Amino acid sequence: MAGVEDKKPSAKQSGGGKKEVKKETGLGLSNRKADNFGEWYSEVVVNGEMIEYYDISGCYILRPWAMSIWEEMQAFFDAELKKMKVKNCYFPVFVSPAVLQKEKDHVEGFAPEVAWVTKSGETDLEVPIAIRPTSETVMYPYYSKWIRGHRDLPLKLNQWCNVVRWEFSNPTPFIRSREFLWQEGHTAFATKAEADAEVLEILELYRRIYEEYLAIPVIKGKKSELEKFAGGLYTTSVEAFIPNTGRGIQGATSHCLGQNFAKMFEINFENEKGEKAMAWQNSWAYSTRTIGVMVMVHGDDKGLVLPPKVASVQVIVVPVPYKDADTQGIFNACSATVNTLCEAGIRAESDFRDNYSPGWKYSHWEMKGVPLRIEIGPKDLANEKVRAVRRDNSAKIDIPTAGLVEQVKDLLQNIQQNLFDEAKRKRDACVQVIHTWDDFMEALSQRKMILAPWCDEQEVEVDVKARTKGEMGAAKTLCSPFDQPELPEGTKCFASGKPAKKWTYWGRSY
Amino acid sequence: MAGVEDKKPSAKQSGGGKKEVKKETGLGLSNRKADNFGEWYSEVVVNGEMIEYYDISGCYILRPWAMSIWEEMQAFFDAELKKMKVKNCYFPVFVSPAVLQKEKDHVEGFAPEVAWVTKSGETDLEVPIAIRPTSETVMYPYYSKWIRGHRDLPLKLNQWCNVVRWEFSNPTPFIRSREFLWQEGHTAFATKAEADAEVLEILELYRRIYEEYLAIPVIKGKKSELEKFAGGLYTTSVEAFIPNTGRGIQGATSHCLGQNFAKMFEINFENEKGEKAMAWQNSWAYSTRTIGVMVMVHGDDKGLVLPPKVASVQVIVVPVPYKDADTQGIFNACSATVNTLCEAGIRAESDFRDNYSPGWKYSHWEMKGVPLRIEIGPKDLANEKVRAVRRDNSAKIDIPTAGLVEQVKDLLQNIQQNLFDEAKRKRDACVQVIHTWDDFMEALSQRKMILAPWCDEQEVEVDVKARTKGEMGAAKTLCSPFDQPELPEGTKCFASGKPAKKWTYWGRSY
Repeated sequence: MAGVEDKKPSAKQSGGGKKEVKKETGLGLSNRKADNFGEWYSEVVVNGEMIEYYDISGCYILRPWAMSIWEEMQAFFDAELKKMKVKNCYFPVFVSPAVLQKEKDHVEGFAPEVAWVTKSGETDLEVPIAIRPTSETVMYPYYSKWIRGHRDLPLKLNQWCNVVRWEFSNPTPFIRSREFLWQEGHTAFATKAEADAEVLEILELYRRIYEEYLAIPVIKGKKSELEKFAGGLYTTSVEAFIPNTGRGIQGATSHCLGQNFAKMFEINFENEKGEKAMAWQNSWAYSTRTIGVMVMVHGDDKGLVLPPKVASVQVIVVPVPYKDADTQGIFNACSATVNTLCEAGIRAESDFRDNYSPGWKYSHWEMKGVPLRIEIGPKDLANEKVRAVRRDNSAKIDIPTAGLVEQVKDLLQNIQQNLFDEAKRKRDACVQVIHTWDDFMEALSQRKMILAPWCDEQEVEVDVKARTKGEMGAAKTLCSPFDQPELPEGTKCFASGKPAKKWTYWGRSY
Repeated sequence: MAGVEDKKPSAKQSGGGKKEVKKETGLGLSNRKADNFGEWYSEVVVNGEMIEYYDISGCYILRPWAMSIWEEMQAFFDAELKKMKVKNCYFPVFVSPAVLQKEKDHVEGFAPEVAWVTKSGETDLEVPIAIRPTSETVMYPYYSKWIRGHRDLPLKLNQWCNVVRWEFSNPTPFIRSREFLWQEGHTAFATKAEADAEVLEILELYRRIYEEYLAIPVIKGKKSELEKFAGGLYTTSVEAFIPNTGRGIQGATSHCLGQNFAKMFEINFENEKGEKAMAWQNSWAYSTRTIGVMVMVHGDDKGLVLPPKVASVQVIVVPVPYKDADTQGIFNACSATVNTLCEAGIRAESDFRDNYSPGWKYSHWEMKGVPLRIEIGPKDLANEKVRAVRRDNSAKIDIPTAGLVEQVKDLLQNIQQNLFDEAKRKRDACVQVIHTWDDFMEALSQRKMILAPWCDEQEVEVDVKARTKGEMGAAKTLCSPFDQPELPEGTKCFASGKPAKKWTYWGRSY
């Protein structure tokens, strides 16, 4: 829509470094991502209408713009679970203290954050009741009851629910909140081999959520003993990285619990030989944190940037009427465009509001991160084309009406891929391979994601944490990637000087 | 499968009134629906694997067999909401006391049942925090913030979530539990006319859930002033009836809140004339109670009876192998049958377990309420047919393999309709029209759903409640049906003798 560019009252020029906030409309961000990341994040989730701050600290309202992203991921993951014969269920939000405390390591990990109900109405409860921080101890007494023989295995259950962890440090929307939504899968198998295989099968689904849906590169790997799930055998995770803060962020976790919970909760079965055996268990979860990572990775100084696969509106169609122009014709063309796209399965909407200028609307939908904007003005109408503008790189493309669906589909795919490629390029630029303590400290100060040879000893990680403590938070292991670079014999641990056993990612984290 | 009937080790003969429990397998119910309804219900929800009792009183585990029914209803209702442009969101589970107490009538209605969090870890909270019993007071402070002008209206939000009401009377799975799952819709409009229209539009969806999905007849109507939602303007509901107990049960409610909450929470907007106006609001909800009503209405002495539209397994295929018969051929035919049905969109599964007899399997799937059983034995194989057995009426039908999909589809539709017709016949047989107090008391003692002319005065309902108080619970109004029979002039209220204003359903209720 070249014809209206001179009239464009948009708050900010696309692509440029200079930013002017259009104060009279309240549009635009007052913080820049590169300058004040934390403030920028708080502002963009609110102005993008993902989050509303709530009057209880650490709790947030998930607005429809965020919920629809959650639902897109949920539709994918839930369908995959059904293929794996995992069944949905719902266990109570309340746990009795006796059950909660049954697994010692586990309760130590969660106890400080547990919220307790002690009253109903005006009446004190006889025994305080905990709100689930996670449901291992809620569910496993019943696994013990339901699992009798080898034919009862595998038992594979999942629930979509809210959980509560009353954390006091730095609440952040999506990333660290006192209540959040998640799915938690809890499975039991006759053999460790089956459990091991499922851990990785689920982890691959988590990778796909991040990489295919949210367009965020992640690293699959194993957590250190210090960082693994309290009470489990080993933890695998997908790890993302936020270049702006130089912090890793655990994206989702898939735990093999081994037989530890089975022992505590007596989850036994008669095997095929008629002998008593103990179940092998897994648990795995991803949460609304995913949405926060997406905002942090893709958002820019104009607002949210949503990957097309999760955007509830993939294309916004804006009429650009002119004085003396065929306004009704333009509006009709917009409606026809939306209909054509929707019929082709593309999530398109029009913005016909009469009290905002086209420029205001451009800024508004940029703030909300809609992947593609289509503008239709008198010249477009005359030339039987529409003007498309990409949110990710501000590129403008004229599309003949005849080829609309095909080209928009291509563009959306291209945007999805470009967001991933760009995020990967930025993430990769932050990865630093080091071998010595000095290089480690230097890389840490440069906010890198550090790949280092490590002796895999718990005391060494504790020591590294102690030595890096400071205002920014200590460094810790993020994961040991499954994709291990070669480790030549004689390679020494960067921190202890002992023989290195594996490559491990280190850094500060969320 | 006539060939195996003499060998059939089934626990109970179908259709007959006599029941013998097969004790050695643990199958079968020890209570009869007609004799001990309460015990029968508790047993059938557990043996049918819908519910597991939980170690906190009034909380229940929803097992996959129940969850899948919830999900079928959810898929229907959520899609309808999206057509109505209602958007999903998620508000926190926690409410601060100041906000909870803002609407006086409302808080009085819920205060005795509110669960309070007072501690996190070992630390006392500064202010106790309530767990939502419903979300009017959670949401509306933000409606006040989001709604500024007439263009912000209508605002239509919904959430799928858990709520907590710490009731002390008679917990019953699905029907009355301290935590339950529901959807709650909260909408705001510029005009009362729009709000009124939506109340009925939603109520119609609730009717469809009950009648089209759960095969349960319901009556649409308006609640009395005494029974309406605390703080609202008027409440509409769909009312079901349980013939065995002679109790009405509120199926779902759609409330017009009027402007009462808008006043308390200052939900104002500038209308098209530039004047300050107050929003009109609705709220509406249905919960997992629906599933309990379904169990109560359709279940029988063999167990659950699931309507095909909500059953996660619509057809169970059981091989009936014989000594010397072509066992592999039979198994292959079962697999082929399941595949053919699944490809046609029918939810079919096979039961190939080798440690149970066919008869045991028949009883097992009857207990779980699967609408249609298909048996395949050697003679069926030879004759290229299968034997179908209906759960609802035990009818046996031989189906040629060639016409399988079509006939099974017909049968499932027929079962769905028959369940509804049968439930309606039984419900209608319980409806008693009365005009006098004596007839009222007589009908009440016969556990009827009583339709009576009423003066519509609140004191009269209070008085009827007082006069019918007893072990069984007092009678109250269920609803005034929208479909009103003729009320001849001069008709008197059955209870007060004053002029009657409307026909109203009365009875004991859940």
